[in-house]
Amino acid sequence: MNVIMDLCLVPMGVGVSVSEYIVACHEILKKKGLKTQLHAYGTNIEGDWDDVMTAVKECHERVHGMGAPRITTTIKMGTRVDRKQSMDEKISSVMDKLE
Amino acid sequence: MNVIMDLCLVPMGVGVSVSEYIVACHEILKKKGLKTQLHAYGTNIEGDWDDVMTAVKECHERVHGMGAPRITTTIKMGTRVDRKQSMDEKISSVMDKLE
Amino acid sequence: MNVIMDLCLVPMGVGVSVSEYIVACHEILKKKGLKTQLHAYGTNIEGDWDDVMTAVKECHERVHGMGAPRITTTIKMGTRVDRKQSMDEKISSVMDKLE
Amino acid sequence: MNVIMDLCLVPMGVGVSVSEYIVACHEILKKKGLKTQLHAYGTNIEGDWDDVMTAVKECHERVHGMGAPRITTTIKMGTRVDRKQSMDEKISSVMDKLE
Repeated sequence: MNVIMDLCLVPMGVGVSVSEYIVACHEILKKKGLKTQLHAYGTNIEGDWDDVMTAVKECHERVHGMGAPRITTTIKMGTRVDRKQSMDEKISSVMDKLE
Repeated sequence: MNVIMDLCLVPMGVGVSVSEYIVACHEILKKKGLKTQLHAYGTNIEGDWDDVMTAVKECHERVHGMGAPRITTTIKMGTRVDRKQSMDEKISSVMDKLE
Repeated sequence: MNVIMDLCLVPMGVGVSVSEYIVACHEILKKKGLKTQLHAYGTNIEGDWDDVMTAVKECHERVHGMGAPRITTTIKMGTRVDRKQSMDEKISSVMDKLE
Repeated sequence: MNVIMDLCLVPMGVGVSVSEYIVACHEILKKKGLKTQLHAYGTNIEGDWDDVMTAVKECHERVHGMGAPRITTTIKMGTRVDRKQSMDEKISSVMDKLE
């Protein structure tokens, strides 16, 4: 089962600047070979359900390992069985209708 | 690693009434022996990371199996390594300070 | 337009314990006369769109005023025009089908 | 108070294809002069709190007006008072650290 996810991981108890943690997560996602797209409020990920979920778990473990005592993560994720759809196709389906 | 999750699964393409799908998910969570609390905009779940994630995957599979061609799910989830904290304790930490 | 919202406000840069900020938000919501229900990963709110949104803004202002330099908030919210539905009815629609 | 928001509006009861509704929302946001960035699981918006919230309300009204009986929306939004930060700066703070 393929999933398209929007991942937003927020380390707590480490101050206001959290970019180093996001970078660490991004590196995990890339090493896994997952297709990713960083945006201003999270990272979109596309791949097999188990691969993506394993990566999310590793992100939590890594960020805790970097010293964050607490993490709150917001995820949106979509699956569909009627047809395949990539992240690029989702964006195109809207962009193509914008003037 | 323990996780406290707020799960909100939304089947698309099946009309406006989605309670039967939520019920099906709730039954999966209960059969897994996970601690759950239904609220008006989702279900809170507490348990081991892998157990919770396995249940979430089964929810998607079941809801697709029930006929929903597309699902969009929103999850909030928290982990912490500084101390253990249950869902009840999270609620109490606020309720105890309310007059 | 009525809205049912799940509000989860996370102050950043103030350490791992955030219950005092949640309490402050809860007091704002109650003073507004909004119907609320605290759960383990947020607060459900029911009311007129503008009233609820005004309260959410005041929550951000108050939490910044209490010293939080940064806030990240996750909201789920639902509106419907086919019929009225309260938070209690949403819960009942599922609970009534659970054995 | 400035806000950076990730908006993901999901019309329910209109089938699986929802791009026309997203397009309608995008046009509202653009007409308001708000800075936006479409991504594969939502639209990022940057602007004054009240302007952004007014636009979100108009999106709900428009999508209902287009025939959607029910809408569920997921929002992430951030405010900060320690310094100004744009969507571009949020992305750069991560991208600059990626090899």
